[in-house]
Amino acid sequence: MVETTWSRASGERLRYWWVNHNQSAAQEIAGGFLWSPKREANGARSQYYDNMRIATRGDLVLAYSAQHIGHVGIVTDDAVSTARPTEDGPAITDRSYDGWMLPVAWRPVPQPLRPRAIWPELQPLMPARYSPLDLNGNGAQKAYLTEISEAAFDLLRARCGIEALPALATCPPQFERIQDALDDAAEQAIANDPALDSTEKAQLVQSRRGQGLFRDRVIAVEGSCRLTGVSNLALLVASHIKPWRSCETAAERLDGENGLLLTPSADRLFDRGFISFEPNGAMIISPRLSTEDLRRLRLAECEPARPFGERQSDYLQHHREFIFLS
Amino acid sequence: MVETTWSRASGERLRYWWVNHNQSAAQEIAGGFLWSPKREANGARSQYYDNMRIATRGDLVLAYSAQHIGHVGIVTDDAVSTARPTEDGPAITDRSYDGWMLPVAWRPVPQPLRPRAIWPELQPLMPARYSPLDLNGNGAQKAYLTEISEAAFDLLRARCGIEALPALATCPPQFERIQDALDDAAEQAIANDPALDSTEKAQLVQSRRGQGLFRDRVIAVEGSCRLTGVSNLALLVASHIKPWRSCETAAERLDGENGLLLTPSADRLFDRGFISFEPNGAMIISPRLSTEDLRRLRLAECEPARPFGERQSDYLQHHREFIFLS
Repeated sequence: MVETTWSRASGERLRYWWVNHNQSAAQEIAGGFLWSPKREANGARSQYYDNMRIATRGDLVLAYSAQHIGHVGIVTDDAVSTARPTEDGPAITDRSYDGWMLPVAWRPVPQPLRPRAIWPELQPLMPARYSPLDLNGNGAQKAYLTEISEAAFDLLRARCGIEALPALATCPPQFERIQDALDDAAEQAIANDPALDSTEKAQLVQSRRGQGLFRDRVIAVEGSCRLTGVSNLALLVASHIKPWRSCETAAERLDGENGLLLTPSADRLFDRGFISFEPNGAMIISPRLSTEDLRRLRLAECEPARPFGERQSDYLQHHREFIFLS
Repeated sequence: MVETTWSRASGERLRYWWVNHNQSAAQEIAGGFLWSPKREANGARSQYYDNMRIATRGDLVLAYSAQHIGHVGIVTDDAVSTARPTEDGPAITDRSYDGWMLPVAWRPVPQPLRPRAIWPELQPLMPARYSPLDLNGNGAQKAYLTEISEAAFDLLRARCGIEALPALATCPPQFERIQDALDDAAEQAIANDPALDSTEKAQLVQSRRGQGLFRDRVIAVEGSCRLTGVSNLALLVASHIKPWRSCETAAERLDGENGLLLTPSADRLFDRGFISFEPNGAMIISPRLSTEDLRRLRLAECEPARPFGERQSDYLQHHREFIFLS
């Protein structure tokens, strides 16, 4: 069921999910994603929202709305930090980036199922905490994305008549595509901003790709790759710590302290949240990154840690909280 | 004189160059570059043009025009394959990419010098072959970029009153900037092409960054990184073999056979021409890449070579001839 070319982090198993998404179902199914806020309205954490970042490529999801399971999906990539999507999909409607967008390839189930109809059989298999259904087998009020057991999934799969699951091999990863769409929208906003002159616009657009003034400033701050020690500028990427698209001001986008100088593979790990750094310079490795991949990238053995400055540390706090896959 | 953070390939020494550029001097000095065709008009190779790819970051250049040495420059990056620049600098005026653009930071010399005025002293220090001056100390007809000895450079430097040379540390590398400018121009041409519908335009623009249809096709052809064996799609770049900007048709830009799936650092080496491949899959390493950098990137020990298909091999021939730094 899981494609052979996808290496899960060792010990990370395939997970089965259930989502209750009444209000947003049509938009999410059509758009090929799930979206949730990062926090409750009062700022509290929510297991349902934290699950958005636990779900990963290859996981399976049952979609429940209007009291029926109507779609099954396969997660095609890790969640991306975005603002609430508009009808056109992910967009820069504001600068909040207050939610997670999880890419999912959906297909309708052959026989839409009302779980309440099989409640006596289903109830013993459902989770005790964070169940998507209440004690009567109706949709639980506050539930969004929640994990269910393989046994529950298998029962529901059979009763929905699901024979073939979506093939992961035909589902391209979506993380970079969503990022690119967000970057494109932010670039368009820069082009249309009457408060910026043409030089500022050019600097901001160049900084998207780690070029121009931003790169020069990062070189002045960092000098070499913290992981490999490479100092040949032709081999280094000027990477934003707080992502370019998430920056709230032009100054943040061009701030050399908001940058690291990394070899391209290290940059990719950092950009995807597979690694981050403590203020003392120590690298943190996500459990989402397999030991095998880290070994193949030869990034397990690194240069001695160099402590970060105060402004870099502020940006790194954003990275650890919203980018790093903890 | 050479910045400490720049690692030259072991054994590669700082070189001194002289350029005769009468016709194009004003444009090249103002634009911060040198440009030459790749070949003579009759298709023959020229040492003067081949020198454009031998010059590298940190090398020094004396610019000779109107019978005077008027500028001294420092090479800030390797040459990039471009068409003949227009007055606006590098541009996509045609699809030929028939020349080399070498980025140089120029400054005027304090005392412009007519070399003929010191000819008896200078002549013994000038090269026997490919001298930029004829036997009378006048500009040689066909010369363009040619190497001179350190002794000749030192004499000319003293007589031109050059005390401080341009500081390399304040000269950012230009390779990616020129590439981005070329890519931007090509993207604009796609946006304006009435022969393409909106879906085709979107696919072509996505393929610039190795996304979309092109990426899906490369994944189908390659499956994993040839150097590291990484198969986690979140860690791989779909890289064009014949660069996106140099492709002559939409089909070439979207051809999965014109792609490799590489980890980001391997992609950077391939994109810069620091490595290439033989049709049997063997990696070729440029003498321009230092052993130290290769060691730090841990790309010296690779997976067993996998032979390429016929179409991939055709694209690789372009890469070995025009991208690889031999």
